[in-house]
Amino acid sequence: MMIKKPTILVTNDDGVTAPGIKALVEAVKPFGNVVVVAPDKPQSGQGHALTLEHPVRLKAVNIFEGVEAYKCTGTPVDCVKLAKAVVLENRTADLCVSGINHGSNASVNILYSGTMSAAMEASLEGIPSIGFSLLDFAMDADFNPCVPFVQKLVKEILENGMGKANLFNVNFPKLPLAEIKGMKICRQSKGNWKEDYLIQQDPMGRNVYWLKGEFINFDTGEDTDIWALENGYVSIVPSQHDLTDYQSMEGLQHFETGKLNEIC
Amino acid sequence: MMIKKPTILVTNDDGVTAPGIKALVEAVKPFGNVVVVAPDKPQSGQGHALTLEHPVRLKAVNIFEGVEAYKCTGTPVDCVKLAKAVVLENRTADLCVSGINHGSNASVNILYSGTMSAAMEASLEGIPSIGFSLLDFAMDADFNPCVPFVQKLVKEILENGMGKANLFNVNFPKLPLAEIKGMKICRQSKGNWKEDYLIQQDPMGRNVYWLKGEFINFDTGEDTDIWALENGYVSIVPSQHDLTDYQSMEGLQHFETGKLNEIC
Repeated sequence: MMIKKPTILVTNDDGVTAPGIKALVEAVKPFGNVVVVAPDKPQSGQGHALTLEHPVRLKAVNIFEGVEAYKCTGTPVDCVKLAKAVVLENRTADLCVSGINHGSNASVNILYSGTMSAAMEASLEGIPSIGFSLLDFAMDADFNPCVPFVQKLVKEILENGMGKANLFNVNFPKLPLAEIKGMKICRQSKGNWKEDYLIQQDPMGRNVYWLKGEFINFDTGEDTDIWALENGYVSIVPSQHDLTDYQSMEGLQHFETGKLNEIC
Repeated sequence: MMIKKPTILVTNDDGVTAPGIKALVEAVKPFGNVVVVAPDKPQSGQGHALTLEHPVRLKAVNIFEGVEAYKCTGTPVDCVKLAKAVVLENRTADLCVSGINHGSNASVNILYSGTMSAAMEASLEGIPSIGFSLLDFAMDADFNPCVPFVQKLVKEILENGMGKANLFNVNFPKLPLAEIKGMKICRQSKGNWKEDYLIQQDPMGRNVYWLKGEFINFDTGEDTDIWALENGYVSIVPSQHDLTDYQSMEGLQHFETGKLNEIC
């Protein structure tokens, strides 16, 4: 059993005033000392972006009752780096939770997601981390059905750890609690986005391009996050940051060379 | 043998006017029809960021002799998405090359790297892709020693494919050609960044935070990209975008639940 109250770092990518982070802070408050460091504006789709060309700012905010909280002008990953190096300083986060994101981070969306990149950034230093997302973009999305699952995971991880994993990508279907069948450990579904830019003209008559598109799932497995979500389950994908393609390595030895002393 | 001349998409994250992309365009020009779509300004550390809050612009530029080229106001990933959906339209890229980046993208830097995210974005649609980086931040870095290796890889891949892989993270040591021992297939080294923010005051006396830090390699394996680079080799890490932590999956079944009908 823990003697010291655990420190829980909370962040997101929708910004410190988004309803999703409020729901998450309230859900995890009973389990430790909560510290929030989150972007001061929406940072969806920022992936693992860092702010390098200019400095960022950090400002204490009084948004969550009785909770130490800061807004930051940087990306979600900047928030986590600043939290560790400046805000927490000599305190260690026992857990990092990110979200609850407004919209899906299942399948390949993990790559684009600021929510998941923030959680991954914390996990890089060995902090057990969870990114939470609800498949509902609406600002008035109902996060209540997520709460018991969030609390069950957080309690279990603070008490007994995450096994050999240290990063979970958790997605909630848009369903009332009574219709959610449970939580499932899944793999990341294979899929991608098919872009279809909206091309408009600015007042000077010049083309501008708005990114839009459609997610295509081309994975028929019943062990994927997409399958779980489509079938009424909360998906948990244990995730990591080693991008090495071990499966293809064996067939690549012919790319190795010795010295190349002249232009081929 | 190819009958049709292959289409080679070139991008980067240092911007369309960076010396590294010029070196790359010249290196790959003999092997196909080159199309460049690259950011109009430096986009280092942008990871897999997308531009969602506003539209992006695309403008034809005459920078590379005899080469169709565009600059884009978005991120490296935006460049690849626009290239596929708008610039190439009905043409298919046979290969995407990104870089040559000014600075290392070995180990965990792949996560933060716009260069690698652009290459990964192309690989998501099955386009064989390579990100190239030279361990030298200087604007007058010497890219000449990279050229024979770039050409050997591009020629081999256009003729015979990439085996089961479709994304390579290639890093060059900062060495003269005669001292480079060859190319090695490697895995991504385990490491991370230790942040040490530079805190300054703005003219109003308010703190601003500049990200800086030191990369810590904690992997002693001799099969990693960091080992190869430190020992005079060009590193090739076959990379992919499935972040599922398969190794830890088995020990996580206790996180699965059935219905949770009340707040726990």
